[in-house]
Amino acid sequence: MNERQPVRRPGGRSARVGEQVHRAVTDLIGERGYGNFTVGEVAARAGVADSSVYRRWGNLETLLTDVALTRLNTRSPMPDTGSLEGDLRTYAAQVAREITGPDGPAVLRLAVALSNDGQRGPRAGDALRTERMRQLQSMLDRATERGESAPDAPTVLDHVLAPMYIRVLFGMVPLTPEYVDGLVDRLL
Amino acid sequence: MNERQPVRRPGGRSARVGEQVHRAVTDLIGERGYGNFTVGEVAARAGVADSSVYRRWGNLETLLTDVALTRLNTRSPMPDTGSLEGDLRTYAAQVAREITGPDGPAVLRLAVALSNDGQRGPRAGDALRTERMRQLQSMLDRATERGESAPDAPTVLDHVLAPMYIRVLFGMVPLTPEYVDGLVDRLL
Repeated sequence: MNERQPVRRPGGRSARVGEQVHRAVTDLIGERGYGNFTVGEVAARAGVADSSVYRRWGNLETLLTDVALTRLNTRSPMPDTGSLEGDLRTYAAQVAREITGPDGPAVLRLAVALSNDGQRGPRAGDALRTERMRQLQSMLDRATERGESAPDAPTVLDHVLAPMYIRVLFGMVPLTPEYVDGLVDRLL
Repeated sequence: MNERQPVRRPGGRSARVGEQVHRAVTDLIGERGYGNFTVGEVAARAGVADSSVYRRWGNLETLLTDVALTRLNTRSPMPDTGSLEGDLRTYAAQVAREITGPDGPAVLRLAVALSNDGQRGPRAGDALRTERMRQLQSMLDRATERGESAPDAPTVLDHVLAPMYIRVLFGMVPLTPEYVDGLVDRLL
């Protein structure tokens, strides 16, 4: 992202609307569960015009995906601890905390539901997941630039994220710190 | 299960009803998608009384789970090739073929939907998944008895099954034979 800064007023109205809408969605999810509300209800709760929501997200599915993947992945920034091991341990612990938190399993199930299943066309979740994998790869590239030997992002997905996701999806919880650290140890 | 054999007539009517009902569910899934039919419609299609279905499965959720997990896991018997490597390669290839097949992603999503999510009580999928993990552990125990050094079933879940499941759930397909073999190589 350093090379290509998006043209957007820093902070300001856009960021504020984004926060208000995300918070409205999170509140409505807590009260009614996923999907049991409309774009109009989100807008009213956020105190913004329906058109602001439609202009930015297009439809409810895209908005839910944005909230789900923000919560799953980007609420916690990618760590930059100065070592690959530190980065991976911090990242894995953050993801474990997020997906086992109060709405964690529901949000993870939503992310699955919003993903391309290989039989339909691309869905809203795909672009955001691709972006998050790119950010993970950047974290790994920093390690390589420091002279460390780093795995690639799909390998981290397969051997650190996927086991945690599947255990949460199958209800095989909690994910203990020893278990999460063990996944990172095995990868390194 | 060896200590406590269920009392059931071998083969015979019970097995036949099971096959007919499973086939009816598979047909209805193909025609209408998951969940868009009733127990009565399954029974009619299978040529059995509604009460036979209710007596054996209790409700549609349990029946769908039984079909889903049978297809995901037990359609192909656990391999017994004489070596751990052979067993794991065969098993991984079978699972990959099953979950990327025509109804594979839909069945996998159903299995997730029917699993305990760590916040509700046990669900229909949990007991069957537990049984399948027990079968996998038996395959690994055979390797140990032959003097091979074998991982345990949860490790196979984490590093062979979970990566394939998550890639299918996220639409990151196909699973190439090289990819699937690579997961087994890494585990061994």
